[in-house]
Amino acid sequence: MNPIVQLIAVETSKPSLQDNTGDLDRLRKAIELSSGMTPVIPFSCMARVAKDFRQADFKGTAVVNDMGHTMELVDFLKDTPALLPAMALDLGTTHLEAALINLVDGNILSRSNLENRQIQYGADILTRIHFAGKGNGLDVLHNEIVSTINQLTEDLALQAGVTADNIRALSVSGNTTMVHLFLGLDPYHLCREPYTPLVNWPDLCLASDLRLIIHPHAPVWVMPSVGSYFGGDLISGILASGLDEKEEVCMLIDVGTNAEVVLGNREWLIACAGAAGPALEGGIAAMGMRAGPGAIERVTIDPETLELKYKTIDGSPPKGICGSGIIDLVASFYLSRIIDIRGKFRADRCPSRFVQTSQGPAFVVATEEESADGNPVIFGQVDLDAMMRSKAAMYSILTTLTNQVGVGFGDLDKIYVAGAFGRHIDPKQAITLGMLPDLPLETFEPIGNSSLAGAERVLMEKKSRDNCRKLINKITYLELNVNQEFMIRFSGSRFIPHTDTSLFPSVPVFD
Amino acid sequence: MNPIVQLIAVETSKPSLQDNTGDLDRLRKAIELSSGMTPVIPFSCMARVAKDFRQADFKGTAVVNDMGHTMELVDFLKDTPALLPAMALDLGTTHLEAALINLVDGNILSRSNLENRQIQYGADILTRIHFAGKGNGLDVLHNEIVSTINQLTEDLALQAGVTADNIRALSVSGNTTMVHLFLGLDPYHLCREPYTPLVNWPDLCLASDLRLIIHPHAPVWVMPSVGSYFGGDLISGILASGLDEKEEVCMLIDVGTNAEVVLGNREWLIACAGAAGPALEGGIAAMGMRAGPGAIERVTIDPETLELKYKTIDGSPPKGICGSGIIDLVASFYLSRIIDIRGKFRADRCPSRFVQTSQGPAFVVATEEESADGNPVIFGQVDLDAMMRSKAAMYSILTTLTNQVGVGFGDLDKIYVAGAFGRHIDPKQAITLGMLPDLPLETFEPIGNSSLAGAERVLMEKKSRDNCRKLINKITYLELNVNQEFMIRFSGSRFIPHTDTSLFPSVPVFD
Repeated sequence: MNPIVQLIAVETSKPSLQDNTGDLDRLRKAIELSSGMTPVIPFSCMARVAKDFRQADFKGTAVVNDMGHTMELVDFLKDTPALLPAMALDLGTTHLEAALINLVDGNILSRSNLENRQIQYGADILTRIHFAGKGNGLDVLHNEIVSTINQLTEDLALQAGVTADNIRALSVSGNTTMVHLFLGLDPYHLCREPYTPLVNWPDLCLASDLRLIIHPHAPVWVMPSVGSYFGGDLISGILASGLDEKEEVCMLIDVGTNAEVVLGNREWLIACAGAAGPALEGGIAAMGMRAGPGAIERVTIDPETLELKYKTIDGSPPKGICGSGIIDLVASFYLSRIIDIRGKFRADRCPSRFVQTSQGPAFVVATEEESADGNPVIFGQVDLDAMMRSKAAMYSILTTLTNQVGVGFGDLDKIYVAGAFGRHIDPKQAITLGMLPDLPLETFEPIGNSSLAGAERVLMEKKSRDNCRKLINKITYLELNVNQEFMIRFSGSRFIPHTDTSLFPSVPVFD
Repeated sequence: MNPIVQLIAVETSKPSLQDNTGDLDRLRKAIELSSGMTPVIPFSCMARVAKDFRQADFKGTAVVNDMGHTMELVDFLKDTPALLPAMALDLGTTHLEAALINLVDGNILSRSNLENRQIQYGADILTRIHFAGKGNGLDVLHNEIVSTINQLTEDLALQAGVTADNIRALSVSGNTTMVHLFLGLDPYHLCREPYTPLVNWPDLCLASDLRLIIHPHAPVWVMPSVGSYFGGDLISGILASGLDEKEEVCMLIDVGTNAEVVLGNREWLIACAGAAGPALEGGIAAMGMRAGPGAIERVTIDPETLELKYKTIDGSPPKGICGSGIIDLVASFYLSRIIDIRGKFRADRCPSRFVQTSQGPAFVVATEEESADGNPVIFGQVDLDAMMRSKAAMYSILTTLTNQVGVGFGDLDKIYVAGAFGRHIDPKQAITLGMLPDLPLETFEPIGNSSLAGAERVLMEKKSRDNCRKLINKITYLELNVNQEFMIRFSGSRFIPHTDTSLFPSVPVFD
């Protein structure tokens, strides 16, 4: 497997007049002999390693970090540890998710998540980039993300019964902006044409460089990006789905702040990203929320009686509606003809379920009596319009991408759907909306938090770390911001299911 | 040449929608294309390098450090500098000598030297090792050497008209103990059987690791050692003399605190070291001093009239006598029969030149009227005995070493004599004493401060840096501390010129 921190059993002859090689040179030679690698010994580790090696009577376990370009000998232990914790982190714009892994056996020791404290300075990426450009904004955002990570680290460590400074490595998977802010790098050009990152592939650094509370000499691996809108989180997704090793052509869809899509197999990979995300994550709708306690995740409306049923994630009274709930809701609107094919409310179908707001009429999903806080959960025309744009963007992204390489949807063996979006949505409803292509439902495979899963992989496997390099050189990135075809397809997709209904044979058509 | 810090001219295309590769990745690719190397970008340099690269409009000069195991991109300059100063340092037990070199063209910018401030805690290596073992002694010695180096740096910089933080690299050549103290490493085992260094080959570190006042990201190269008594200074000597590239068998003699000797050619190298040094450096004699102003460096005594003539280095009134003066003096004693073949004074030859001291009779080299400070420069039996031991040790080292590999002195093409010893001594007088073998005088070639010259070479040439690795693996080290043959030869050498006078046909024999 060759994890990012390796334990190498060493036993050397003791110094003698016949061989009075220096202690560290003796140790290095022994490591070379048993592992084939010649580690560098960083200045800050020399005195300590030499002392420990002698105290252990020239026998024990060397701790060697894979720094990518070089192997670094950082510790010498008398005994072989059973536990070597390392932290994998999905560094999301709104949320951080992390796992503590034992590098000795690959077992998960603990999991945790936390809201990104940067949120107080801006909900989305663009706001934060602008904030970073003002005064000491970059420092503020950098410090917030480091302290969020440190807090998350303490929780992971506590759960696993270890101390934070026992954590010997960190891998970070995030979008390009989050990675820049994490590393304290200016994100200014990320959102300005031609959308250039300061760096795609940051070399490994040390935890102490970033004031992280894990072991100061822990290597910090940051997933490389392909571009401003194609971050390391998606490289993680490719690793986690195994897309780059498939014989058949497959697709990976990751909906976060953006919708990011990769198409390909072990021969080739093409990718693009577009702003299809926020509505699907529940981020745009007035009552939208992340998939969590109190979030309506399932909705059905009887097409005849128009009776509405919903289900919250934990069965508690509803507080809002998450992405999958919104997709269910809008698909049900369509099937029960509460909206027309353009996504406009037909309030006359059930006037009693509508209320007037300052933004116009809104549909009541849960009444004030049912809700958690006495406020009804409503869904207005504005929310509906945002949803229509998102679904149109999503389908246009998928068609533009497949068309670019002459692949039909029917050629796809699998569509891996990552994240909360993949876990919660009902593909059938998404097809009804014309958001996902009309394929057999078994084509769609949810793969969970693939950003985190990829981060876990690079901690455990050298092959995955090496694959990252190959991946970023292999991927062709299709820039949609300037793509004419995308704009044309986008217009055609702003109907339910589509202007060309023949693309969606399984979806009923109403006149 | 590939100096330790390299300037690489770079011009890249500007970011565009067709190629929005990250700034640092763009720069790295350009360096790869023009130089074939893929540098790592240290975390601490990323933001600055990226900013400077953009400000220079993607065109300029990359500054890349050769860290041995990896190349590190540390700076980006708009213009190509004409000056890239680097410091070569001979880190002596008593004295530091340094040169500032322009890495762009190899020219010497300035030279300077300074007494090692550690001297206040012990004149020789053993005293310092003991001092390092008490309380915070190691820290004290480490700090003293760092501050001595920093003071020397300021002088070098001032002379060259640059600032200290403009100095982009440092190479250090010193004996194994000095290197340990410089790096803050415990020298405890260096003087205790089996005489094991903590490290032979320290990996490169940065100036900031050691609180040096040169550029914080300057690489610090430390010459590797073969053993406790065979330091990096002698590796420098081999590089400087070119011993490891000769077809013929040659010898290198470096007399500092110890006498260190290397024998061999491009095929093989054997080395040893022994305590023959202090007397020859002027360190043991009561009136002994380093070769400097006021030091008597030449002495002749007329064998008939016993008239004595001397010459000080700068022609000023004498303060003491340096190594070459002592050798001249003792050889003249022998030729004028003022001492016998066992090195004992025959005061009756010239009673007027002797005075009585608490240590017994002493020979007056310069009277109190002649001397700089009103004290006569005298040379006693104790000094004479030390000199006899030194010369015996030296000849025994040379014979033991040559005998070990079956080489006769006559087989030697050259004997390179390093340091002040090589610069000042008259080989003919040393032969008279039986200190050096009785070979044609042109065999002996002084090569100056080869420790410093080797340090200069590694700054300028990658080949020399690579050669160090080969050298330390190639050299066979003969441990004299436990060598029976050496002890026997030592006894035989305690006569002038030798018990076996046939070994010195050119030296007159008295009965």
